[in-house]
Amino acid sequence: MAMKEWKFRENSKLKTASAFSIKLVLDDVKTNVNPSDQRPIIPLGHGDPSSFPCFRTTQVAEDAVVDALRSANFNGYAPKGGVLQARRSIAEFLSRNLPYKLSPDDVYVTLGAKQAIEVVLSSLRKPDDKTVAMVIINPGNPCGNIFSHHHLQKIAETARRLGILVISDEAYAHLTFGSKPFVPMGVFGSVVPVLTLGSLSKRWLIPGWRLGWIARNDPDGVFNEYGFIECIKRSLNTNSEAATFIQAAVPQILEKSSDDFFVKTIDILRKDAEMCYECLKDISCFTCLQRPQGSLFLMVKLDLSKLEGIKDDMEFCSKLAKEESVILLPGFVLRMKNWVRVTFAIEPSALEDGLERIKAFFLRHANKK
Amino acid sequence: MAMKEWKFRENSKLKTASAFSIKLVLDDVKTNVNPSDQRPIIPLGHGDPSSFPCFRTTQVAEDAVVDALRSANFNGYAPKGGVLQARRSIAEFLSRNLPYKLSPDDVYVTLGAKQAIEVVLSSLRKPDDKTVAMVIINPGNPCGNIFSHHHLQKIAETARRLGILVISDEAYAHLTFGSKPFVPMGVFGSVVPVLTLGSLSKRWLIPGWRLGWIARNDPDGVFNEYGFIECIKRSLNTNSEAATFIQAAVPQILEKSSDDFFVKTIDILRKDAEMCYECLKDISCFTCLQRPQGSLFLMVKLDLSKLEGIKDDMEFCSKLAKEESVILLPGFVLRMKNWVRVTFAIEPSALEDGLERIKAFFLRHANKK
Repeated sequence: MAMKEWKFRENSKLKTASAFSIKLVLDDVKTNVNPSDQRPIIPLGHGDPSSFPCFRTTQVAEDAVVDALRSANFNGYAPKGGVLQARRSIAEFLSRNLPYKLSPDDVYVTLGAKQAIEVVLSSLRKPDDKTVAMVIINPGNPCGNIFSHHHLQKIAETARRLGILVISDEAYAHLTFGSKPFVPMGVFGSVVPVLTLGSLSKRWLIPGWRLGWIARNDPDGVFNEYGFIECIKRSLNTNSEAATFIQAAVPQILEKSSDDFFVKTIDILRKDAEMCYECLKDISCFTCLQRPQGSLFLMVKLDLSKLEGIKDDMEFCSKLAKEESVILLPGFVLRMKNWVRVTFAIEPSALEDGLERIKAFFLRHANKK
Repeated sequence: MAMKEWKFRENSKLKTASAFSIKLVLDDVKTNVNPSDQRPIIPLGHGDPSSFPCFRTTQVAEDAVVDALRSANFNGYAPKGGVLQARRSIAEFLSRNLPYKLSPDDVYVTLGAKQAIEVVLSSLRKPDDKTVAMVIINPGNPCGNIFSHHHLQKIAETARRLGILVISDEAYAHLTFGSKPFVPMGVFGSVVPVLTLGSLSKRWLIPGWRLGWIARNDPDGVFNEYGFIECIKRSLNTNSEAATFIQAAVPQILEKSSDDFFVKTIDILRKDAEMCYECLKDISCFTCLQRPQGSLFLMVKLDLSKLEGIKDDMEFCSKLAKEESVILLPGFVLRMKNWVRVTFAIEPSALEDGLERIKAFFLRHANKK
């Protein structure tokens, strides 16, 4: 059949987004793996440790979902903004680390932190000559950095002086293993209004459950004057919601998960981060700016002059995949050209293997001059 | 704190969407209910029967989700487009009613049929002078109509002549209880390429699980020439996915649900539809165009000349809520001003009660002239 002369929409937003999609670029890197290599692939490019047995979620979380499902009370559509018991428990959970109390109305349930970002950004005015917000990511992806209490206070004061709000992406909240504790930006909510984006994905190791939130840290009600709440609601109204029974499981997950579970995860991450940093800093084509203190990642800068026949980060990652079956994320996808993101959150024995292979790869490609 | 002179984005798309949101309008209607009315509220405005005990989903579906969850193999991010086993089983499920076989690559898993609609529409070119597609809804929401094989064939031939594709919203597939069987539009995929939108929500009574799909019914590969597949993939890439373990449960749900479960649902719907139609057609302020044959709804046209002191559909629904605690959906939200949508999918005894109250309301407000 000959169809009318038309084409499917070439949406420039979609094109841009896809050009910077981590998944698509990782898939591209993986195509280079040599199928005849008998060794296991070492995946150090992902942001999802849940497939490794040492990073299995707590049974408390599984039980909570099963209970909600079996009750048959949560098969229907969820209210916009989320199931009340989920909003209430997230508010209480976040309030534990704040000098004031959040209410359920301060919380909107989202499909992971990803939808939280989309909803918040679509609620802001179109780009113009007025900057309306500052975005921070703490704990940091991709650099594994943690902002101190003092640093966050300076951010709050700067934002207040500029008359802008702070959007704090805290998807990796509490995943810290260095000397600095995690401090939520909401602590400074009375200095400047803060929107916190969070999720169960990383700390509970369940990114596929798609459960996140937006929290309004605004004890003085500054947002009320700016039509913000209506705007978020409108945006949520055009979006799909998280599965209702997963939302209904949130109170049990937040209240009943034991410290043992979190401590075990953090211990593995600390060991992994240390091993990764100590190895990579001694490979001369890499510059490691700092020892990672949180999240699942570190960034290393490539010194291409130390390498032969490798022109950029993508080629580095492609050849590494081909020769050593190790997957890293080229930095260009994060707009950090000629950097490389390394995920250390895998089984420690596999990480050790992967780091050895990276070392061997460097020795083979080191510039002999 | 005084914030910089700016406002949150007044997005015209969002405003329009919200103006026509069924949920918002129903919430508005419900505010009229008199709290001192001791009788139960009779909800005939919704599209979600899952809260009624007679419409509880099959245990097969619950077990399938529990099994997938307990395996701990599906806690991570799902691949874009969906988990392979879900795509394969949806392809096989749909192929049962087609003269050719779909492959897993013809199926994309979505967050219910709602996201399927969004993805498909965002993939089409911006509105211009060329019509690129025709949308049909079969079984019909809001009218409860079913298109015959002959009618669908005429649609296919018309679309082919015009060189446009057909988008077939089949969210209510197989929910038929009249004389006409459900025929999927994909049957005519070799006449004209068809995109089918479907979901587990209605037939399995689990809208809160958020599991739907887009199926490409294109045995002759016409879409391949038009960049459609890439475009859908780009659009999915910027959207959130259905929870991975729910996706993983799809094969068990589709293959193991028993006929008994479906027959029971259909029997209740048939009884409800019949009771509703027989009652409403005898109330003279309503015109019922046809006996519903599928889905969960019927539409009735209001004859305002038969009523006193009621100026439109919204006022009719508001006063009915106030005086009788019965909720109906005013048609304007579906762009059918002075029509009313009646959902008959509730417990039959509650429906009987609701219909009696509607009759009493009419008698009280009938134009005496």
